Formats: sequence, C-alpha cells, structure tokens
Amino acid sequence: MNSPRLRCAAGPLAALALLCLMPSPVKADEGMWTYDHPPTKQLQERFGFTPSQAWLDHLRLSSVNMYASASFVSADGLILTNHHVTLGYVQRLSTPEHNYVRDGFYAKTQAEELPMPGASISVVESIEDVTARVNAAVKPGATLAQAQEQREKAAAAIQAECLKSTGLKGEVVSLFGGSKRALYRYKEYTDVRLVFTPELAAAFFGGDDDNFTYPRYDLDMSFVRAYENGKPAHVENFLHANPAGAADGDLVFVSGNPGRTDRLMTYAMLEYQRDVVYPSMLQRLWARRTLLKAYGQQGPEQARRARTVLYFIENSVKAREGEFRGLNDAALMKKKLAQEVAVRAAVAKDPAMASYGKAWTELDEAMAWAKAHDKDRRFKMGLDDRGLVGKALMLVRYGQELAKPDAERLSGFHEAELADVVRSLTASGPIYKDLEQVTLTEEIKSIVAGLGPEDPYVKTMLDGMAPEALVSKAMAGTRLDEAAFRKELLKDKGKNVAKSRDPLILLALRIEPTIRQTRDLFREHVDAVETAGLTQVAKAEFAVYGDAVYPDATGTLRLAFGKVAGYPFATTLVPPFTTYYGLFDRACGFGQKGDFAVPPRAAANRAALDLATPLNLVCTADITGGNSGSPLVDKEGRLVGLVFDGNMESHPNTFVYEETQARCVAVDIRGMLEALRKLYGAGPLADELVKGAR
Amino acid sequence: MNSPRLRCAAGPLAALALLCLMPSPVKADEGMWTYDHPPTKQLQERFGFTPSQAWLDHLRLSSVNMYASASFVSADGLILTNHHVTLGYVQRLSTPEHNYVRDGFYAKTQAEELPMPGASISVVESIEDVTARVNAAVKPGATLAQAQEQREKAAAAIQAECLKSTGLKGEVVSLFGGSKRALYRYKEYTDVRLVFTPELAAAFFGGDDDNFTYPRYDLDMSFVRAYENGKPAHVENFLHANPAGAADGDLVFVSGNPGRTDRLMTYAMLEYQRDVVYPSMLQRLWARRTLLKAYGQQGPEQARRARTVLYFIENSVKAREGEFRGLNDAALMKKKLAQEVAVRAAVAKDPAMASYGKAWTELDEAMAWAKAHDKDRRFKMGLDDRGLVGKALMLVRYGQELAKPDAERLSGFHEAELADVVRSLTASGPIYKDLEQVTLTEEIKSIVAGLGPEDPYVKTMLDGMAPEALVSKAMAGTRLDEAAFRKELLKDKGKNVAKSRDPLILLALRIEPTIRQTRDLFREHVDAVETAGLTQVAKAEFAVYGDAVYPDATGTLRLAFGKVAGYPFATTLVPPFTTYYGLFDRACGFGQKGDFAVPPRAAANRAALDLATPLNLVCTADITGGNSGSPLVDKEGRLVGLVFDGNMESHPNTFVYEETQARCVAVDIRGMLEALRKLYGAGPLADELVKGAR
Repeated sequence: MNSPRLRCAAGPLAALALLCLMPSPVKADEGMWTYDHPPTKQLQERFGFTPSQAWLDHLRLSSVNMYASASFVSADGLILTNHHVTLGYVQRLSTPEHNYVRDGFYAKTQAEELPMPGASISVVESIEDVTARVNAAVKPGATLAQAQEQREKAAAAIQAECLKSTGLKGEVVSLFGGSKRALYRYKEYTDVRLVFTPELAAAFFGGDDDNFTYPRYDLDMSFVRAYENGKPAHVENFLHANPAGAADGDLVFVSGNPGRTDRLMTYAMLEYQRDVVYPSMLQRLWARRTLLKAYGQQGPEQARRARTVLYFIENSVKAREGEFRGLNDAALMKKKLAQEVAVRAAVAKDPAMASYGKAWTELDEAMAWAKAHDKDRRFKMGLDDRGLVGKALMLVRYGQELAKPDAERLSGFHEAELADVVRSLTASGPIYKDLEQVTLTEEIKSIVAGLGPEDPYVKTMLDGMAPEALVSKAMAGTRLDEAAFRKELLKDKGKNVAKSRDPLILLALRIEPTIRQTRDLFREHVDAVETAGLTQVAKAEFAVYGDAVYPDATGTLRLAFGKVAGYPFATTLVPPFTTYYGLFDRACGFGQKGDFAVPPRAAANRAALDLATPLNLVCTADITGGNSGSPLVDKEGRLVGLVFDGNMESHPNTFVYEETQARCVAVDIRGMLEALRKLYGAGPLADELVKGAR
Repeated sequence: MNSPRLRCAAGPLAALALLCLMPSPVKADEGMWTYDHPPTKQLQERFGFTPSQAWLDHLRLSSVNMYASASFVSADGLILTNHHVTLGYVQRLSTPEHNYVRDGFYAKTQAEELPMPGASISVVESIEDVTARVNAAVKPGATLAQAQEQREKAAAAIQAECLKSTGLKGEVVSLFGGSKRALYRYKEYTDVRLVFTPELAAAFFGGDDDNFTYPRYDLDMSFVRAYENGKPAHVENFLHANPAGAADGDLVFVSGNPGRTDRLMTYAMLEYQRDVVYPSMLQRLWARRTLLKAYGQQGPEQARRARTVLYFIENSVKAREGEFRGLNDAALMKKKLAQEVAVRAAVAKDPAMASYGKAWTELDEAMAWAKAHDKDRRFKMGLDDRGLVGKALMLVRYGQELAKPDAERLSGFHEAELADVVRSLTASGPIYKDLEQVTLTEEIKSIVAGLGPEDPYVKTMLDGMAPEALVSKAMAGTRLDEAAFRKELLKDKGKNVAKSRDPLILLALRIEPTIRQTRDLFREHVDAVETAGLTQVAKAEFAVYGDAVYPDATGTLRLAFGKVAGYPFATTLVPPFTTYYGLFDRACGFGQKGDFAVPPRAAANRAALDLATPLNLVCTADITGGNSGSPLVDKEGRLVGLVFDGNMESHPNTFVYEETQARCVAVDIRGMLEALRKLYGAGPLADELVKGAR
C-alpha cells in the first residue's frame, strides 16, 4: 500500500520523497481503518498476514450497519448483533403476556420470527473517493462558510445521483477533518425480524456495575434476520462461525461502525477538553444522576420512569470519567504531545508545508477564546437541547427559520433536513412532567448560580420569578408534553409558534435570542476555526506520514485488528478469556444478589453446561462506541466472537490509542454456541450459525 | 471500658474530665487491640456486641504464636496456620523421594505426623501492665540514653523473674512508643509436628501475580500438632469450627500477631518516609530484582539460587509499592494531617499538656536533619547488613566490642545478646559467591555513583581499585562463605578478626569506622529523638482520647474486628466471597499456564467438589504482616476462616487505616473442609476440625 516503506522501495524518486516522510506514528494494534485503505503494511509487519482483496470484500459485505454494528452469519440473512442493540425493539415487542426483555425470545420456526417495526439494516456495497468532485464545487473567492456550504451541496448532489443511478443509498463521508470525502453506497434491508434474544439477566449479568469492566460474563447477543419480499434474504457474503474460537495471542479483526473519536484534536484542544469541557460536563452528569436517583426513590412508578434515563447516565458517567482519566494521564498526554511536536517539527522544516503551520496557532487561539467565554457556553446555552424546554426551543426556531428563504436558514432547517426535525418533534414517546420539572428547576438554578442573579440573561429568563415558581408554573400550564399539540404548532410552517401563550414557548422565546447569539459567536470563534484547522492538521499529517494514518471514527464502516490478549492490572494479570465457571463464581461471591444472580436458564441447566467453555474474551483491537455488535473475525475470516464493550481502560482511546490495558470485550463464539444449545434449546439456530444456512 | 463516653456516664467528675477528652479518632473497623484493652466500646457501638471476659480469654488462649500466627483447633493440640507459614519446615522435611512442597503431605495416622525440627509455638497465658515497674528503674538525672538502658535492664529482670517464678517465658512489650510496658507470659510447646499441608499449586494458586490481590482462590492452610511428652498436647482452649461459615456483613474477629505498623508516626515523619526513605528503598529493591532476574537467566542452577530471594523481593516490592501509594495518596495524608492537627490543637489549649507540644517540633527538626544527611544514610551505611560483607562487618564489630566491658558495648553485643550474634554468624545456610559478587558489585557501584569517586569514604572503600576488581578479588580470596571459617574467627572473643587477611574482612575494617560514625550521628539526631518524641506523642494521644486508642503493632498478640464485606473497585464491585468455580475460571482464562494451572488434585476430583463452596473471603478487620495464619472467628468464637493475606489496597494501612477498599483476605472454613474431604482424602482431619477432637 501507499505507506512510507513501500514508497521507498518504489524507486529513487520515491526514496527522495521519503526525506519528508517520517515513519508511521502507528506503532501498535491501532487504527479504525477504512476498507479502501486497509492497514496492509501494519498487518504484514506485526502479524505477517496480508489480507487479499477478496478477503476484505467478503468481510465488508458481511458487515451490517444497524445504527450500531452487526454481521450476516448465514446465507439465509441471519444477522448477529448485541442484545443491547436490539433491546429497544425487544422492549416494544414485549407485552404484558410476553415479557421478552425479562424472559428472552426464540423463534423455533421461521413463522415465529417477529417483525421489528422501524428496523432497517444496510451493507456497504462500494466506496469511492469523491474528494476532488466535492472540492471542485468550491468557487474561487468563497469564504470559509461559503466553501463549506458549497461542499455540502456537492455532497448532497452526489448522494442523490447515487440513489438514482444505482438504487443504492449514498452517503458522502467526511474523513480526516474534511480533507477527504468518500461516497459509501449502501444496500438496505427494511424488513428485519427478531429470531433470538436471551433474557436481560444473561445478556447484562453484573448490570451497571460491570458495564465497561472486564473480566465479564455476559451473553450480550441477539439474532435477527433480514427479509426481502417477505422471505429470508439470501446473501452471498456472510461469516462462517469457527466453533473452535480464537486462542490467546491470535490475530483477530473487528469490522464495524465506530461512532466518534477525537484523535486529530491538537494538544491544546485536549487541554481545553481536560480543563474546561470535561469538568463541567461531569459535574452536570453527576448532578443529574443524583437528581434522578432521588426522584426514583419517591416510589415504584418514579423508579420505573427514572430507570432508562439512569441507565444512560450511568453509562455516560463511566465513559466520560474514563475519558477524563485519560486526559489527566500524564503519560498519555505526553505521548500525544510528542506526536504533535514531531509533526510540527517536520512541517516547520519543509517550506512546502508552510501553509499548514499556522493551523496549530489558530487552534490555540480558538481554545483560548473558548476558555475565556466558557461561562457563556455553560450557562447561556445551558437549556439548549434539554427535555421539554429543548422541544420548545426547537419549535421556536422552526417558526423563525421557516419564515426565511431556504438558503438563509440555520443548518438543520433546510428543506431537505426538515423531515428529521418534524419526526423528532412529533415522536410520541412518554414525557413525565414531574421529572421534567425536577430537572429543569435544577438546570435553571445552576444557570442562576453560574451567571449571578443580576445577569441580564438570567433576568430575561426568570422574568421576575424564582426558578422553582417559574418552572412549576410552566409545567402546570404547558401542553408541550402532548405530541398532538406539538404537531399542531408545526402547522403552517410554524407561524403560530410565536403567538402561542404556552408558558414553555414563552420561556423559549425569551431565551432563544441569547442562545442563538452565543452559539453564533462560538461557531465563528471556535467551531469554524476547528473545522478549518483540523483539515490543515490532517493534511500536514498526510504530508508527513503519507496515508499510513487512519481517519477519526465517523460512524461508518471500519476495520480494526489486534490480538487476543490479557493485560496487567493493579499488581496482577487479567486473563484473556472468561468461562461459565466465572459466571457462577461471581454470582455466588455476591450471594446471587440483584444483577449478580445466576440467570435463570443457566441456573436450571447448569449440569448440562460445559463450564470451562470460554464465555467472553478480550483483544487489543481499536474500537469505540458504535462498535457494539461488531463481529470478531479470525485470519480465515471466520466468526470467533461478538464485540459488545470496551473495558474501562479503553475510554481514553477516544483521544489517544494505548494498548497496555485498553481492551475490546467480546462474547466468545464457543460461549454463544454452548448457550444456544444447552440453555435455550436453540440447537437449530446454533446449527445455522455453524453450517452457514438453515 | 475506659472510653470517653463511658467516662462521661460515670458521674460529674468524669464529665468534667471529658472537657479535655475528644471523641475517639477510631471511627471504623480499625485497630489491633491488646487483649487487656479490647475494643469493647467500638464493638458495642458498631455491632451491638460485647464480648465477655470468658469469650476474650478463650480466644486469647486459643491463639498461637509461631513467628507468624496460628490457633488451636482441637482439644488434641491440632493447630491451624498458613501453608506459607510452614513452608520453610516443609521444604526441609522434603527429600528427593518425598517432595511435600510439590505434592503436599497428609499424616493419615498420628504415627505419621512429622516432627518439625526447630519449630516451637507459644500461647499468651497472661498480660500484666509493668509500666510503673519499668519506669521506676530510671534514676534521677539519667540522660535519654541512660534512661533507655535502665528501662531495658528492668525489663530483662522482669522477664527473668517471670521464668523463674512461673516457668513461663516472659516478654516485656513496649507499647505506644514506649509509654506503656506490658509483661506477656507465654506457655511454650517445642515439639511440633506436621499433620497436613496441601501442594504449593493449591496453596499459592496465582503465584507472585496474585500475591496481595483479591479476588483470590488459595488454599493457604497447613495443620500442625503440638506435642507434650511425646503425645499430642491436650488443650482446654481451642476454636470450634463453624462449618456454616460467615455471611456477608457478619461481624468477625482476627486474633494474631501483627508485626509492625507506624501509625504513631507524625505527619512530618510520613513525609520523610514518602520523600526520602521510600523512593531510595524502592529504587534499591527494583535494582536488586533486575539483577537477580538477570542472574537467574544465566542457567537453571542460577535460577534455582535466585528463586527464593526473588520471591521475597517480589513480595517486598508489592508491599512497599503499596505503602508508597498510600504515602502519595492525598486523601490518606490529609486524614493523617487532620488527626494530628486535632491532637495538637487539644494539646495547645491545655496547659497541663504543654510538655507534649514540643515533641512534634523536635520530630520536625529530626526529619529535616535526616533529610539533609540522607546521602550519608543511603551510601555510607549502604553495605551494612548486606550478604557476606554484612557478615564481615559483624565479625569486625564482634572483635571490637568484645574487647570492651559489657556496659560500654554497642547494643546487640551485650553478653546476654551474644547468643543471637553467634547463631547468626555460624548458621550453615548456602552462600553463593557468584550471586554475592553480582550484588556487592552493584551496591558498591551505586555508592561510588552516589558519593562521587573523590569522596574520602569511597576512596577508603575502594583502596585504589575499581569496584569490579575489588569485589572479584575479594570474592575469589574470601573464606567467609564457610561457616567453619566464621566460627574460627569468633574464637577468643574475636580477637583475631582484626588481624585476619581475608579480603572481605579487610574491606570491612576499612569501612566500619565511617559506618559506625554515620550510624552514631543518626542515632543521636534521629533515632533518639524519634523514640523520645513518639513517647510524648503517644502520651498526648492518651491525654486527649483516653485509652480509646490502640498501640502500633509490635509482633505480639492482638485482637482485630470487622465485617465480611466486598468493596468498590475501579468502576465495579468486588464480591465478599470467591468459590471453587472461580479457581477453575481463572485457570481456564489463562489457559492453565504456570501458576494459574488448576492444582492437580482439584483437577482430578473436580466432579466431587461442590464448586459453589466459598473458598476465600474478605473482611474489614485491621491486619498487617505477621497476621498470616490468624484464625477468623465469629461472634460465638467459632472458626470461620484463616487469614492469609491483605489485598494490595491494605498496604497503606501501615501508616493510616482506611477501610474503603483495604481488606483482610482469608480462606473460608467451608473451602477448607471441602478440600480436606473431597480433594485430599483427609476426612478424619476435617472431622477433628468439626468435632474439636480426634
């Protein structure tokens, strides 16, 4: 591939080019690589393995996007993903008579497979570099903002053309801070049915406590099936299971859709995250958690209402705390700084790269500006996008923006984007006014405390009332919790929103001007500089390293690699595998309390289980949120596991990859097959997995 | 008891006394209490339990001192302790035909019980406060050093008198920095025989890696038997096993011999430990480990020679690193400082306590002096007490001191103490010259590096040679590795030592004057101030808290209490119990490699085992090194476990007790009984444990 060493081998001219190319900074099992630029050199160097194009195509076409990740595992459209990926569907499919969350579900026959309304999956059929086409749309003399808009329009045109000419959904993905654009063409399946899901107690053994930890003992798996024309979809590319699994040290691959990393961020940006963004974000999360826990303790109904939100908050708290630990890890930050110093030194030496040099300085300045204006960000934008008041703000904006010509509207309110706005505003999920009241009061009180009672924005927001009175009056009077009412307000391009006397709309109308002004200032001084600056930083990294670098995660399909490996922890070692023995040990050790009770089916069928069967395993592959449900694949392209988590040490990988302790956590194929056969009476499903067909 | 609250309840005068008494600083399951001042108030307040005097006497008389800790567990003199406590004896009892370390040992009949040469055990028959008697020996006008010597002589006289009048061995124990003295009277048993020990693989599963960690899965137990007149000793007091074990949250007790804590140390002393002592100590340990590992890699014989030393070094490294983490734990140090500030404030307020106040200032000054002279401590005393050169130094001192009248000799060389010196110098353990050469060369090189080649001490030490040449010549020429040669030198009060031409003796003669001078300076400026100062600090704490405080560990019998409890760790929870399931899980997770292989008997008899049987457990009781082998006892005084370790979070407890994560680790009685019956065919031994007699 196009790596420094190969360039060098290509001839004297290439060797000359090497003078300005430094060795790849990627020294470990690092990287979420795109399928059009796989880590061939790294794989050869580290593992003596070179995947063929057919190997890569097969894995790509077996990989499934279903918001999170998944894979085809039989010719009959069978798809494997995580229990927690399908959980929302399973909740909606459950009834008082059939609690599939509590009891699990298995369709013994095809007829019993349960349609999952709203579910769709897609597969990346092809990838095309469209950087030149997108950039060609930028007119000479365009400002930064104009150029951005021209690129977006060009991308939209490419996507539309893709659908028209191929019937495939197109997505133009912005990579490397926007310095590369690639068209991903997707084949979609919109008829997806539930085949198997275990009970929550087995899928999420250990609950919140064990979330993001390892050793772990979870059967976090679900099977769904793609249908076409009312019949199971026939697919050419799917992963054959390797019932023998992987061994310690084996090379393995993860193919999935990592959501977001920020490894392109400069050192100054990370310092800003560490010193400004994370401390206030964590404070807010901790406060919300405290609030929700107190609310949940008021009674069983409140506990039920708080539960799902609390789950997401606990999950966020653990992830953000882990990232924050990384930002405060001197060794990690030193590593990041060293990488940056190396690139900047190379840039400084080469006059051809002079134009990149100022990016870091400009980003430094943007961070300083952001730091100086952080009170505004935290408090003046504090109510944006929050619960019911967030809906009120969106309605207000809807009315204001739709009164303008399309070209002049805020991003998000262009005609082509309106469907999403309307869908979000008319969704009929339950809204609990008492919970909204508690959280909004707290938010407003923290804004008053942050800006002080004499601040003009605070005065405008409170309109002469105390926070408690303001919110309780607003909650008593608002009808925004009714989807029908919100729908009504959207009518006639939302022109009635501004006239509404709904108290939450009135609050939104009072605060929106300041929110908008603050956001505009941050867009100008921070966001725009970041976008432009990171594009330059990415270009500089290309110039220095060639494309032996990979782009930050963007929620699109990536290939990661690594080895099955335990790790040192505290003063001992963590094993690469766990087994069913461990499930019982941890349950007994806690006296089978709460989330640590042995799942009922495991308890009932213990004698049938081979307890030594590997249940979970860890590997060094580079993953992040969004990789949930990714297949874990061996060198032969066979399924050996199912990714469902990262350990807590992997959170700092958002910013800097580190493999001493960071691990990707997966369900072992052997543990899955053992469970299907011995615990769930799902032998036929296990057979389909092993045979690759029903 | 004599606690503040009870004093208050005792009447108006006592209530007045309370004005200068503050609430007990002991707020948790803290304390290694002496049996004559048990934590009655704490037990009542925290657990609603008040042990009777009979309960206390029974536990004390069932507790056995065998250098570490142990307990009587049957009327027939059966004693339970740790495998690692008996390991040295078991090694010596092993032969090429019978490798009891590798295979374990079980005496099916009494006749098969194996005498353990050199082993003796003792039981505390009574405790008497002799503070007044010891202090009465101090003559008016005595200097600090003279007073110290007068007290030591008085203690020796009390001990001698004890033996004479009761036939019991007496030990005058110095408590609370010497401000209290207690006479412990011991009944001794000198005929001790090995009854049962499991194979090393079961006792030490997880090896060095799992040492000081939890969750843990070790059968670290051994049974020995005390004999009298060639027959099993009949004892009135022994612990009955409770085959049901303890439950999560249960109150439990530990009765054993904790070796040393430094909780009386002032904040300044801890800072000195943190900033000066520990960094250099750890450097030295790490360097020695590196050296020994390299030496061990030279061949199988070198590996064998290095193994035991390496085990102790790894053990020390983990413990010292853990303590160092504690010293660097801001929260822990803050807690210590707050305790000290409270005592000093109380002292400052009360004119009656004025005399104590200067202790802290004097200790501050002593620490400053020690810090300023740390190079001397590290490098000029660097060869003291080290291997063969340490023996050479001791021989030189022997010759010099024995030429003086007894009263003028260095401590350690008084007539009454000579037996120990001679025993140590004539012990015939193997000495490996090549290993000595490697370590001594490294020590000398680090001294040269630390003081610089022009330092007069360095020049005297090297005598014109390079370190390598000096050491290799000395090792080639010395005969000090021969016990007979050392014995020869001891003859005639060691008067020939000074004339010896042995190269290591010559080196010792060159360096001893500087070592002695440096040690004398440190004794004067640091040790003496510490001894006097800590006595004052202890007195101040008594004055402030009454005797609701406990003394630092001194290797003598103590009672600790706590509850069975898991703990939060990283982002999840650690369970209070582990089970046999976990042993198999951890073994399988590591692919049964090395110290993580399932112990052979467990592998062979797996089907017979009830895998859910608790194997190890943790509790909050306050323990430290020396507690190994202590019985874990429930409220009814029954045996529920066997203490064998502290987790790594417990190391900082050397300086400040903290119970969030610090735990005492024990083998569960249920795990022991299950193993004896199902793995070792030792049903009769299990029966003796349960019945309390053979």
